[in-house]
Amino acid sequence: MLCKSIVYSIRKSPKPRQCHNVPKAPLPGEPMKPYTLTEIPGPRSDALLNEFSKIQQIGSIQYFADYQRSVGNYLADIDGNVFLDMFMQLSTLPLGYNHRSILGALSCAGNQRIMANRPALGLFPGLEWPCKLQDTLLQPCVAPKGLQCVFTTNCGDCSTEYAIQMAFIKYAERRRQGNKFTKKEKENAPFNKPPGCPELSILSFEGGYHGRTFGALALTHFKYIMKVDIPSLPWPIAPFPQYLYPLDQYEKENKEEDARCIEQKSIPLILDEIQTGGGATGRIWAHEYFELNIPPDIVTFSNKMQASGFYHSYEYMPRLPYRIFNSWMGDPSKILILEAVLQSIETDDLLSHVCHVGNYLLCELNTLQHEFPHLMNSVRGRGFIIAFDMPCNDTKNKFLHLIRSKGIQVGECGIKSIRLRPCLIFGEYHADIFLEILRNCLQELTDS
Amino acid sequence: MLCKSIVYSIRKSPKPRQCHNVPKAPLPGEPMKPYTLTEIPGPRSDALLNEFSKIQQIGSIQYFADYQRSVGNYLADIDGNVFLDMFMQLSTLPLGYNHRSILGALSCAGNQRIMANRPALGLFPGLEWPCKLQDTLLQPCVAPKGLQCVFTTNCGDCSTEYAIQMAFIKYAERRRQGNKFTKKEKENAPFNKPPGCPELSILSFEGGYHGRTFGALALTHFKYIMKVDIPSLPWPIAPFPQYLYPLDQYEKENKEEDARCIEQKSIPLILDEIQTGGGATGRIWAHEYFELNIPPDIVTFSNKMQASGFYHSYEYMPRLPYRIFNSWMGDPSKILILEAVLQSIETDDLLSHVCHVGNYLLCELNTLQHEFPHLMNSVRGRGFIIAFDMPCNDTKNKFLHLIRSKGIQVGECGIKSIRLRPCLIFGEYHADIFLEILRNCLQELTDS
Repeated sequence: MLCKSIVYSIRKSPKPRQCHNVPKAPLPGEPMKPYTLTEIPGPRSDALLNEFSKIQQIGSIQYFADYQRSVGNYLADIDGNVFLDMFMQLSTLPLGYNHRSILGALSCAGNQRIMANRPALGLFPGLEWPCKLQDTLLQPCVAPKGLQCVFTTNCGDCSTEYAIQMAFIKYAERRRQGNKFTKKEKENAPFNKPPGCPELSILSFEGGYHGRTFGALALTHFKYIMKVDIPSLPWPIAPFPQYLYPLDQYEKENKEEDARCIEQKSIPLILDEIQTGGGATGRIWAHEYFELNIPPDIVTFSNKMQASGFYHSYEYMPRLPYRIFNSWMGDPSKILILEAVLQSIETDDLLSHVCHVGNYLLCELNTLQHEFPHLMNSVRGRGFIIAFDMPCNDTKNKFLHLIRSKGIQVGECGIKSIRLRPCLIFGEYHADIFLEILRNCLQELTDS
Repeated sequence: MLCKSIVYSIRKSPKPRQCHNVPKAPLPGEPMKPYTLTEIPGPRSDALLNEFSKIQQIGSIQYFADYQRSVGNYLADIDGNVFLDMFMQLSTLPLGYNHRSILGALSCAGNQRIMANRPALGLFPGLEWPCKLQDTLLQPCVAPKGLQCVFTTNCGDCSTEYAIQMAFIKYAERRRQGNKFTKKEKENAPFNKPPGCPELSILSFEGGYHGRTFGALALTHFKYIMKVDIPSLPWPIAPFPQYLYPLDQYEKENKEEDARCIEQKSIPLILDEIQTGGGATGRIWAHEYFELNIPPDIVTFSNKMQASGFYHSYEYMPRLPYRIFNSWMGDPSKILILEAVLQSIETDDLLSHVCHVGNYLLCELNTLQHEFPHLMNSVRGRGFIIAFDMPCNDTKNKFLHLIRSKGIQVGECGIKSIRLRPCLIFGEYHADIFLEILRNCLQELTDS
């Protein structure tokens, strides 16, 4: 066992860094409330789905969206329905729809020239590339503490893939104690055979999700539908703490659960912040809350960061070129969008905002779960990464259908969990709309 | 053994579809010739490389480019050098630098709104998404014959990864003969174990390159430096035909070599057109030249297509949703660029142009290899995918250094091959400049 890939665990109640009075009002351009005019999906989405089914598997598509008409926290579909979006494209959209600062970055002619000439970053990076990295991913308030290097990739899957390759390379380098590759290693590596391709493994957590490409999928132990029929690597799996909620009432039990799960030490630590990074927790990285004594070795990112890749310490940088490499090695156009996102996070003090509104939402959800204990339990979260459970899959599906019909888009997770992942500009005004409709849904389900 | 992943093989001499008189002149905005003012890399690149080495492994970087000043076939670096670029960012840039049609697409406000709202395409695709796919990837003159479905991905690595997953899923579905997943399959799949994760494999060719993520890397059997220290899947490897050139003089020998290598039948066929697709050969897909009796099952694409993904037959579409899925599942911004590229290919008749100029370049290179047989051999190619060999690694490295110092950017491949991968707007005018400088280099190497 070599590396330990851990996912975000929420162990403490949120501490907002700053409480300020946010006016309860819609954002410029937003409607006062969500509204639905048709069944979901509506007739136009249905017709388009029928057409689209000839070229793609459509079973996961909820409806077709009208992104030109979507704004802020509101997602418009093509049947005239307008949803308050608390899932934000699987938690990938940081500032909601058509945000002025992102549109501003895209309308800049200099940026358009950068986007028109996507380079092979490992061979011919552009003049501005080191600066752009310094001004975005490597800003002192952005880069995870202790990690001064960054490797950009083309997507989140590749962040996981190349991050674990870097860990393997470092591990082998240490084991080799300064010696060169052996003749046998060089001869066997191209043929997938040891000792060139060694029999090493990554330890990941039961229930985790780290992506769907072969390496990432070997670390994913979630729904069988993601994995069945696809060969895998024989890598080990560790139990993930199954906490009892609310956390402050079960401190002793949860500490014992931690001890049960954490038994491996002295091994490189990779943190997957692909979903949790980018400010969603009220800090740029969820692991800032962990108060680790030493920094992790590698931290992956994607999604809300728009750009994908991973941070690592200088020590992990491969000694030789081309060890981790591909044609593009990242996408400057995504760094330009990230630049706009980070500027908004700073200017609009969005991290404090997320802490404040996230705390408000969590408190209200806690109240609701006491009112409807037969429908809702295990409310948990940090900032805008919030979830609660319903008693079973069937109730969850009824609830999802009902709340969507009332204009709220939420996400689901596992068998019975509801995921809330609003974007960073979600305010108390929006939270109140959501809470009112949520209460109506819970009441309707109770009465039915 | 399940699938056969084959790479582009060049078996016939090029047949230009149309010979037209292209005026021998630079394109608008281009300089008359390349020029160099400093050593390569120059002092400004050197200084920036030194800085950049603190955050990334820089050994593969040749110099820093100035993309704002690059135009057409010419790549400017930050030291005032201007190269005639015959490698075009590892063959990923279809229309050279700052092409008017791509800049036009990026400056359109409607497109900017599409780019500002990157959706989760598997859940909430935009209104225009099916149309955009029909007008680009699925155009009758673009989609590979017989393949009417397309799955978009975030990058080329993922095209390979998800394409082979789709082949595994189809194979298992057939083997299952309409039965449901067994209880054991469902239970074991999340834990990387058979029968959920079966012990199946992909057959790939010796010497091939299909990407660097774990699944793609298990099909890559190229330089050891790409693979050593990274665990792999125990998948089989087939020999790849080692042809003798020129092809028309060795027809019998090469047919025997084909027969030696092709022994597997009735198995799904995946063609990797990531580097060869997008018009580089004078057709949109290199395999159009193969004159296959039945279409391949899956064709992957990326690079020059800007968008990444794979085509497949309707039969291969997974019966259930979420079997092949991730957060973004593609990037509409790349489809907007592809749209501009395909329009230029059609308007400017670039496929005929590539055939014509490629043929011209190949003929002239053939002449040169007879003049300098001690330095150049095995000239081969189709359209703008051209290569030749030098006698050894040492000569190749001397040649690369020399020709770059004279303002020509070429690529290398393997131990002793030179890769030429100009973009689709490379003309006879540019070919003549290259050929003159190439001759000078060969003469200098002969005299030295």
